[in-house]
Amino acid sequence: MDPFANFPPINQHLASKAAAATPSLVETNESPLALVSVEPDSSALGWRTEPIPATVGTVSAPPLLTEGGSVILDFGGHRTGYLSFDLVPYKHGLEPHDAPCRLHIVFGEIVTDVAESFEPYNAWLSKAWLPDEIMTVDFLPHRVQVPRRHAFRFVKITVLAASTRYGVRVENAVARGISSAPASPPPSLSFQAAGSELSEDVKARLRKIDEVAARTLKNCMLTVYEDGPRRDRRLWIGDVRLQALTAYTLKWDTELAKRCLYLFAACPLTEEGLLSACVYETPCSGGQSIVDYAHLYAAALRDYVVASGDIETGKELFPVALKQFQIGLQRVDPATGLYAAAEKEGDAAAEGDSGGELWHFIDWAEGLHKTCAEQGVLIFGLRALIDLAQTLQMQQPTVATPWAAAEPLALADVVDRLVAGARTHLYDADRGVFISGPDRQVSWASNAWAVLAGVPTSKEQGARALRTAYDDKQAVKGTTPYLHHYLVEALITAGEDVRARDHVLRYWGSMVDAGAETFFEAWDPERPRFSPYGDLHSNS
Amino acid sequence: MDPFANFPPINQHLASKAAAATPSLVETNESPLALVSVEPDSSALGWRTEPIPATVGTVSAPPLLTEGGSVILDFGGHRTGYLSFDLVPYKHGLEPHDAPCRLHIVFGEIVTDVAESFEPYNAWLSKAWLPDEIMTVDFLPHRVQVPRRHAFRFVKITVLAASTRYGVRVENAVARGISSAPASPPPSLSFQAAGSELSEDVKARLRKIDEVAARTLKNCMLTVYEDGPRRDRRLWIGDVRLQALTAYTLKWDTELAKRCLYLFAACPLTEEGLLSACVYETPCSGGQSIVDYAHLYAAALRDYVVASGDIETGKELFPVALKQFQIGLQRVDPATGLYAAAEKEGDAAAEGDSGGELWHFIDWAEGLHKTCAEQGVLIFGLRALIDLAQTLQMQQPTVATPWAAAEPLALADVVDRLVAGARTHLYDADRGVFISGPDRQVSWASNAWAVLAGVPTSKEQGARALRTAYDDKQAVKGTTPYLHHYLVEALITAGEDVRARDHVLRYWGSMVDAGAETFFEAWDPERPRFSPYGDLHSNS
Repeated sequence: MDPFANFPPINQHLASKAAAATPSLVETNESPLALVSVEPDSSALGWRTEPIPATVGTVSAPPLLTEGGSVILDFGGHRTGYLSFDLVPYKHGLEPHDAPCRLHIVFGEIVTDVAESFEPYNAWLSKAWLPDEIMTVDFLPHRVQVPRRHAFRFVKITVLAASTRYGVRVENAVARGISSAPASPPPSLSFQAAGSELSEDVKARLRKIDEVAARTLKNCMLTVYEDGPRRDRRLWIGDVRLQALTAYTLKWDTELAKRCLYLFAACPLTEEGLLSACVYETPCSGGQSIVDYAHLYAAALRDYVVASGDIETGKELFPVALKQFQIGLQRVDPATGLYAAAEKEGDAAAEGDSGGELWHFIDWAEGLHKTCAEQGVLIFGLRALIDLAQTLQMQQPTVATPWAAAEPLALADVVDRLVAGARTHLYDADRGVFISGPDRQVSWASNAWAVLAGVPTSKEQGARALRTAYDDKQAVKGTTPYLHHYLVEALITAGEDVRARDHVLRYWGSMVDAGAETFFEAWDPERPRFSPYGDLHSNS
Repeated sequence: MDPFANFPPINQHLASKAAAATPSLVETNESPLALVSVEPDSSALGWRTEPIPATVGTVSAPPLLTEGGSVILDFGGHRTGYLSFDLVPYKHGLEPHDAPCRLHIVFGEIVTDVAESFEPYNAWLSKAWLPDEIMTVDFLPHRVQVPRRHAFRFVKITVLAASTRYGVRVENAVARGISSAPASPPPSLSFQAAGSELSEDVKARLRKIDEVAARTLKNCMLTVYEDGPRRDRRLWIGDVRLQALTAYTLKWDTELAKRCLYLFAACPLTEEGLLSACVYETPCSGGQSIVDYAHLYAAALRDYVVASGDIETGKELFPVALKQFQIGLQRVDPATGLYAAAEKEGDAAAEGDSGGELWHFIDWAEGLHKTCAEQGVLIFGLRALIDLAQTLQMQQPTVATPWAAAEPLALADVVDRLVAGARTHLYDADRGVFISGPDRQVSWASNAWAVLAGVPTSKEQGARALRTAYDDKQAVKGTTPYLHHYLVEALITAGEDVRARDHVLRYWGSMVDAGAETFFEAWDPERPRFSPYGDLHSNS
């Protein structure tokens, strides 16, 4: 590959459709609730904040900071946006402030960001993503406007340098949150439709989880569904799909989803039309493809058309969704009917980067064998495309396959072949569980995606597989809320509603217990400091 | 003293006069001449720069910088102003730049700034004055505009953090210099009026010194005569006087000097009217007085009236100049006729701060006894005030003194008493030199100011005193160009023109040899890394 290769040209027609759907942003100005101190404790991440009593409510008496001094502002909750404050000098003697004031400003999504030093930094992601700033103010008093956008609940401001003649106070701090979601949060869960039998404790916990989930969505809803406003401002197909599904449920959006679907379509990775796993708003391809994300585009498009009723967009983008299978199906082994993910996964996924077209993601779990899950996603995507064709009242399309090279097959026939292959090669009837790879690995991912793809011969078989995987201490679990979503969805599909709810309470609840203001991109409750990037401070 | 005491109210009438004289700034945009490397060498400060051949003239092929990489831009000469440049990403593979780029930008007045780390920082001046910035650029390519003003010839740009996916190039850098001086430099010294007998080598060296001196002045001429644009943007009476004298000679200015004289007058330190040694443009008092600077205000005002012919300003500010002597003469010992500087100097000067009204500066030389020099400045200032009264065609004023408390004395009578005291107590007739303090300390400062004050009984006595002090290995010399100016002026006053010129060649020439683009605020050729602040990197 030419190291300076360019992407195919942007499809300007599709890009203009994306541009036309750009939302306006709603601004919310908030003052800090209090100054806080951080204290070590026994919670998962090892810290808690303690409000400084005199500052609760007004922050009217901020301390005088001299060189080395710091304050931590707690704005309550989490927002994506901008910080400003007055930096006001107070002289100690007769001389006025006679030198600039140099500040270190750290933005904290959670307490660890403001409780711990970022050094030494061990992530393989760019250190430039760290949420801090060094700013020098020449003339005081001054309204400091931090120019860069950040995602934060806490802000720690440290005076790195000032002269001995004066101290400063941080006054009138304002966090200007921005989002394309509505300003007001959704109503709390009522438990009238379902769950009325739950205890008040459980209801409260579910309400809290729901609230954090809605805030997570809101703060990722800018002019695209951002993967994470702290760091990764791109949009990724798999993540956008789940974000949009949540927004449809809340009646918050369909336009932003439309914009994202067009952006993906406008910036393919290859001339052939393989979608980029992520794109930039510019617009520009992110330069890599994820096989499972390409196959989920059909589901994201189907979801959008169902939520919006926008048949025109569905028809325009249908060929884009279909193209992913025309490409991906070429990698199905005619002998087994299995998608051949195995030989390429592992090294690429472990590095978080394929360097090309064949990154298989599914989840960040180390050692996960992905053939079964990729097979599931492939079938799941094809079924969504069949749904979409029906919704659009289109004739069911056909697609070329390696096992029937002479004539294209109807999508339903393709699904049948893939399901049959999975049933034959990926189900361990003795153990009653779906497996993947030569070591017959059991994982949550394999079983969730097998169930969602409709591979089990019965609902009971699916439920048993999920229970078996879930209860298997040796099973490879999941490290991302992204995969855990599909696990919960699979549990519900298989009729395991109680287990699904318990899992939500346990997994998402443990993030809330650890101080999450928005749900983390990666979270393993048994290893709270786990990061797929090598450093907790790189998680977002 | 109340630690939060306020200054007297600003005199709004005088402040409005200052505001009306605010100059406009001339902008000059310049491109770097080359990228350079720094190499250790045997020069005074230990470094030289070497242009990177491929970049000379155009800087058209800047290197690709990855994390940790850096370039040093050489803009040639020195200016006060702003930096901007394009930060352009170049991807290594298919993926585009996927993370922000964090830069460390160091502005170098001289090579040491970009050749050496600022750590560890040992100055007692605020570290916030260090001329560097940390900037993070989210979206590339980007025109980086460094918002703060700096004073620089060199700029070192280091990529602190970027992702592994891309490198950056620094392209189209522009230094936007600002000054209220004319854009074009003054003509080179012609040596037609004087010095035609000098060798071409000496002429060239004097031309170079003159050029650096003019650049120093230009880059301090903003909307006030700044003490130093790198760090101390205030105006100080003693420094403004010498800056303005140079500007009058070059026919560059009288208005800026007028503005400064009004600013000082508008912001006294005390209700009584003692001038602040320095003021801010805001306007605001700097919160301290320097006795010798207060006494030099009369000379600065006299110089201005002579240069500008502005009688009205002379008359309006005459009482301000007179007031300084009404205050300062109270500290003259009636028995000796000597200004009583001794008991207060030392500790305050060593700390660079009096914390009050009685800082005696003269120079930063350690151990300098200041009674003789302060006596000289006092007489020098009074003589200037007498000159000024004549120029303004005013009746010579009278002033109260401790030795004739019953009736005010004419200024000329006061001068006679002070001169007599100096001749009696500060001249060592055996050694033929002026001395100060109980240890009969010989210093350049004492002898320069005694001569400038007209204390010697003859031109020959003054010349002998200066030669004796100059050649005395034990004499306390000077550490600032500020004092060295008065030494040279005294030498000329005493008829020692050749020695004066040789001293200019030696002292200012040694700064040029050390790489000065503008003359340093402090410089001891025998201790090139000397700083009155404890760290070379704090000098400006």
